Amino acid sequence: MDRKKLISLIKLKKSFLCIGLDSDIEKIPKHLLVYEDPILEFNKSIIDATKDLCVAYKLNIAFYECNGVKGWKTLKNTLDYIPKDIFTIADAKRGDIGNTSSMYAKAFFKNMNFDSITVSPYMGSDSVKPFLSFNDKWVILLALTSNKGSTDFQHLSSDNKPIYQHVIEQSSLWGDINNTMYVIGATNTEYLKKIRKIIPDHFLLVPGVGAQGGSLENVINFGMTKDCGLLVNSSRGIIYAGLNKDFATLARDEAIKIKLKMQLALNKFL
Amino acid sequence: MDRKKLISLIKLKKSFLCIGLDSDIEKIPKHLLVYEDPILEFNKSIIDATKDLCVAYKLNIAFYECNGVKGWKTLKNTLDYIPKDIFTIADAKRGDIGNTSSMYAKAFFKNMNFDSITVSPYMGSDSVKPFLSFNDKWVILLALTSNKGSTDFQHLSSDNKPIYQHVIEQSSLWGDINNTMYVIGATNTEYLKKIRKIIPDHFLLVPGVGAQGGSLENVINFGMTKDCGLLVNSSRGIIYAGLNKDFATLARDEAIKIKLKMQLALNKFL
Repeated sequence: MDRKKLISLIKLKKSFLCIGLDSDIEKIPKHLLVYEDPILEFNKSIIDATKDLCVAYKLNIAFYECNGVKGWKTLKNTLDYIPKDIFTIADAKRGDIGNTSSMYAKAFFKNMNFDSITVSPYMGSDSVKPFLSFNDKWVILLALTSNKGSTDFQHLSSDNKPIYQHVIEQSSLWGDINNTMYVIGATNTEYLKKIRKIIPDHFLLVPGVGAQGGSLENVINFGMTKDCGLLVNSSRGIIYAGLNKDFATLARDEAIKIKLKMQLALNKFL
Repeated sequence: MDRKKLISLIKLKKSFLCIGLDSDIEKIPKHLLVYEDPILEFNKSIIDATKDLCVAYKLNIAFYECNGVKGWKTLKNTLDYIPKDIFTIADAKRGDIGNTSSMYAKAFFKNMNFDSITVSPYMGSDSVKPFLSFNDKWVILLALTSNKGSTDFQHLSSDNKPIYQHVIEQSSLWGDINNTMYVIGATNTEYLKKIRKIIPDHFLLVPGVGAQGGSLENVINFGMTKDCGLLVNSSRGIIYAGLNKDFATLARDEAIKIKLKMQLALNKFL
């Protein structure tokens, strides 16, 4: 999906909600366990209940990979079930030397047709560039993450700039606003204003709203651009809103709450 | 496999060779394409031809993941084919927030029983620690990699120390020499001496010897400890030494060349 289409989608649906399918066999409602592939049933119900409210689904690859061959089938079948006009993110945090990154790009962009993949910047330019050579596909690069450990290295200062700023500045030259987004943790909203000065037009994928405690209002106030420029993710807060037979309805209710706040912001700012 | 057993294995086999199974359908000998799973046949032949010469096999996960469900079957079957007394490395470069890293740990340590996994440090302590909570399993953390892009962020200086040094110093406190190794690119041997001052006893996984141009002699001179402390990897240089029906014999010949150099060094230093 290209940038223009993504922006249109956001304006049409009045939403920049991304729903994270971190679907865990130990957490999904017990009545689904009778199905041959309980996680696929769970995902299909969540997708049916929320697809009019969100513009993106993020599939956290670890939750599928941990089930081996079966998990990869679930991943593929879930991806195929997502309507084609919704942006898809392989939350894989891959990144390796050039020829290996090319293989990962093939896995997620060609074999599975995801629109985007999250990539770790630690190994530098040649670990990221292979993902940038596909038309209408996106790299979503880790910059400032929302977890506690983000302070360990991302905030170290070099030449009076934190490492995450070096990552943003350098990598924004490898691609452009049409194929690069950044992961910016919502729990660090104080930094959003600063980041927007460096990359005023790039889309940001903001995790950490909901279960991880980030504030949607702050993200909107400091991160939104004239094209929206935001995909805000909620995973556990939505998909595990209910644990019984009405789980999909409760997930929908939770998604509506967030979507309405987004709608208000979009009406106000765009 | 625990540290004691790994060291015994190195002394017994007089080798610290790790062979990287970066097995690519486009590069393996054409006569194997008649098999149902050509990559598995290739891997089995390479393993049969080299298992007495190496102490570890490193499976580059991208090369399996890019074949989807089928690739995961090949990965599992290859792992099952490796003799149990050889150290196995999932070269996966994973790393995510705590609950997600736990899922990756489950995937590679429980479901697939790898001895170790390569992990990217960018997201910090809570992205690495879940991998450290398994008995006799290892994290092999990216510190200083062998690719060109390693200069982009790993060498940035903070408090007069490069980022990779911060990674080594901090992370060496998360685990210990019994569950943590580091990836140190052989193309950067000038740094090995410095790194050995910080972590005199940790095992280092050294890629980049062979196709990537690193020097085995330098790695030995500056990296070897009284317990050896090294796993030196060669992938393409060995597995693609031949492209015809005698590929396994030629791979063996190449492995012998490296192994003999290692044997000399071990006889001299240990």
